[in-house]
Amino acid sequence: MQNSNTCFDFVENGGVTSPAGFLASGAVAGLKQSGNPDMALLYSEKDCAFAGTFTSNLFCAAPVRYCREICQTAKTVRAMVINSGVANACTGLEGYNNSRKTAEEAARILNIEPQQVLVASTGHIGDQLPMDKIFNGIKHGASSLSADGGAAAARAIMTTDTRPKELAVSFTVNGKKVTVGGMCKGAGMISPKMIAAPHATMICCVTTDAKIDNGLLSALLAGSVENSFNRITVDNDMSTNDTVIVFANGVSGVEILPGTAEEKAFAEALGMVTAHLARAIVYDGEGVTKFISVEVSGAASNADAEKCARAIANSPLCKTAWFGGDPNWGRILAAAGYSGASFQTENFTLFFDDVPVIKGGLPAGTEESKMAEVMKRREFSVKVDLGAGQSSATVWTGDFTYDYVKINADYRT
Amino acid sequence: MQNSNTCFDFVENGGVTSPAGFLASGAVAGLKQSGNPDMALLYSEKDCAFAGTFTSNLFCAAPVRYCREICQTAKTVRAMVINSGVANACTGLEGYNNSRKTAEEAARILNIEPQQVLVASTGHIGDQLPMDKIFNGIKHGASSLSADGGAAAARAIMTTDTRPKELAVSFTVNGKKVTVGGMCKGAGMISPKMIAAPHATMICCVTTDAKIDNGLLSALLAGSVENSFNRITVDNDMSTNDTVIVFANGVSGVEILPGTAEEKAFAEALGMVTAHLARAIVYDGEGVTKFISVEVSGAASNADAEKCARAIANSPLCKTAWFGGDPNWGRILAAAGYSGASFQTENFTLFFDDVPVIKGGLPAGTEESKMAEVMKRREFSVKVDLGAGQSSATVWTGDFTYDYVKINADYRT
Repeated sequence: MQNSNTCFDFVENGGVTSPAGFLASGAVAGLKQSGNPDMALLYSEKDCAFAGTFTSNLFCAAPVRYCREICQTAKTVRAMVINSGVANACTGLEGYNNSRKTAEEAARILNIEPQQVLVASTGHIGDQLPMDKIFNGIKHGASSLSADGGAAAARAIMTTDTRPKELAVSFTVNGKKVTVGGMCKGAGMISPKMIAAPHATMICCVTTDAKIDNGLLSALLAGSVENSFNRITVDNDMSTNDTVIVFANGVSGVEILPGTAEEKAFAEALGMVTAHLARAIVYDGEGVTKFISVEVSGAASNADAEKCARAIANSPLCKTAWFGGDPNWGRILAAAGYSGASFQTENFTLFFDDVPVIKGGLPAGTEESKMAEVMKRREFSVKVDLGAGQSSATVWTGDFTYDYVKINADYRT
Repeated sequence: MQNSNTCFDFVENGGVTSPAGFLASGAVAGLKQSGNPDMALLYSEKDCAFAGTFTSNLFCAAPVRYCREICQTAKTVRAMVINSGVANACTGLEGYNNSRKTAEEAARILNIEPQQVLVASTGHIGDQLPMDKIFNGIKHGASSLSADGGAAAARAIMTTDTRPKELAVSFTVNGKKVTVGGMCKGAGMISPKMIAAPHATMICCVTTDAKIDNGLLSALLAGSVENSFNRITVDNDMSTNDTVIVFANGVSGVEILPGTAEEKAFAEALGMVTAHLARAIVYDGEGVTKFISVEVSGAASNADAEKCARAIANSPLCKTAWFGGDPNWGRILAAAGYSGASFQTENFTLFFDDVPVIKGGLPAGTEESKMAEVMKRREFSVKVDLGAGQSSATVWTGDFTYDYVKINADYRT
């Protein structure tokens, strides 16, 4: 989508409660052994248009199944309950009923309709939700809802995350301010491919005071997810629980209609928030010390560009070399070569940031020390041109480290 | 293929020189900084039928391109030169010419035709072969060829391997003994998918004194590679250099013809050697402490079975959990769920060896301590039944450890 030429402001310490009319809280339900907050509530004072995207994993979790139904049947929503610590995945009918009971209990306490409550869970797969603790968490969460509770909510949804992830941006239309805020969690089991719903145990919640209908919101969300959460990978493991939900309460009085300048500005704001949050997941990825943007251009098709970018971004050999600061470009060429993308090796070009590495399929003659300089950066780009067409794709990834192994060999111990 | 009911003997300390008429050696060309042997020569006293399978990576190495041409043009071969330390991949026309010169120099010294010499290289990608060292290595290797040189050759082709990998088996037909011997290397960049030629930098050389024509040998090799090297993964990174070559010199006087009992016995022996060597690569995989056989059955198609097995076998979360001895089966279900295989989750079954974990998509009720017992074994099976059909596939993999990261973050330092 073309740039809207709109000016955007970043809201200081912004998050899901930055748009007018939203309250949030973080509470201790007691699901985490650490005793850290493990339940977030989001509540809107008014009915909200909404849209969601979810994991494409066949073993989708109970709350994902529940939310998909709500997306198909409800016209508006008012609240969302997110617990961390237990994923409520692979839990059968009992798990599904527990998601439903969670929504019903929140609705009862908040005095809204049960079908106006969405739910999400993240944590260990295979355990049932302890419903007494869940109910207790909802009670505490509901009593502490506040218009500046976004930060507490963002903290309560963390699992192996080391820090909360939030952002809010605003723009003005005819003197009226529109704000888009968001929070997300995710550090491992990150390789979302959401379908009118994305994938990874990433969970993201976006709020806005724009006025927009469900259909347009859903379309704009799908586009923004495709260019944010569906572009990231930490470990190539798609989660059972990936969920992105956007709430729009209309409080700003600014209506977003198809084909207007307002739509462009809103889409851009939504894209800024989701891209920031997606990048924040990679930055905070399990054990990650470096952020690598793998940018493939010159592909024969979009599918080829994505295959090539994902092969490089997920290659354990590339990721460990990046960790070691080793400009071992042979591993990148090998990954491109097995990715399934079609190209002639003699047309292959590779840059590390602006440093040429490979031209015409052969070493560009750059001294290795110059390449190694790039590898020392906290963030750098691996830019591939396949010389086979006009398509391109970018995937954001991290390096592969001792700490990734440590975190995941010891996850429950 | 049905079992032949043949008795097979394992040759003590057997390898590529176990079949009659083959000589081999290992020499120091000076490519490895360590000063360890880095050049293997294999030589047959008689003309050999032969067949090869090679990596399907687009960035295939120069020796792969060279050998493919020999496979298409030569009727017989006599020798093979394998260097370790430099992969001769991504080296352009100069690299190709260096492979040709390597073959020509070996032919000159061994007094055979240049097109009767095959070549293979393994090591760092992107450097040109230092031809003075290569020529020196060939000279030394040729002068030390011997009928018990198989072990020295197996040692000379190692890179990050911690031990040589060899095997020979024999069987008797009408009082005449047929022997099949082999050696291979490979520890990282292992995920072969060879096409009438396999993939991974694994390099494997098989010898036999059976008499067989190139066409049948090629067909039997393709079958045995499909069930051995194409079944293994260490890191899901397909190499630029994977090569499997089989030499058959006919010295045993036993002719292998299609549709005979001899063909069955020979195929079985070839299968035993390649399966042993493929498993040995995983056992000696970079940083590997455990050998896991991922066995998927009940799939709707062979492609689905393989997709599911590979997704589990390559999942960083599964592999780190296995390293940690954590029966974190949720990660296995998640991998099956995103693999692309079609199935109903309520028909999903999972066993760790003979311990039931999941039945009907839900926990089977086994105590976690029993599952953890299995995880402590040096070797165990992850058995999945998708309940969707009759197809099955097995993939052999290892765990993901601190040492894998260490080896590959520091490979060249």
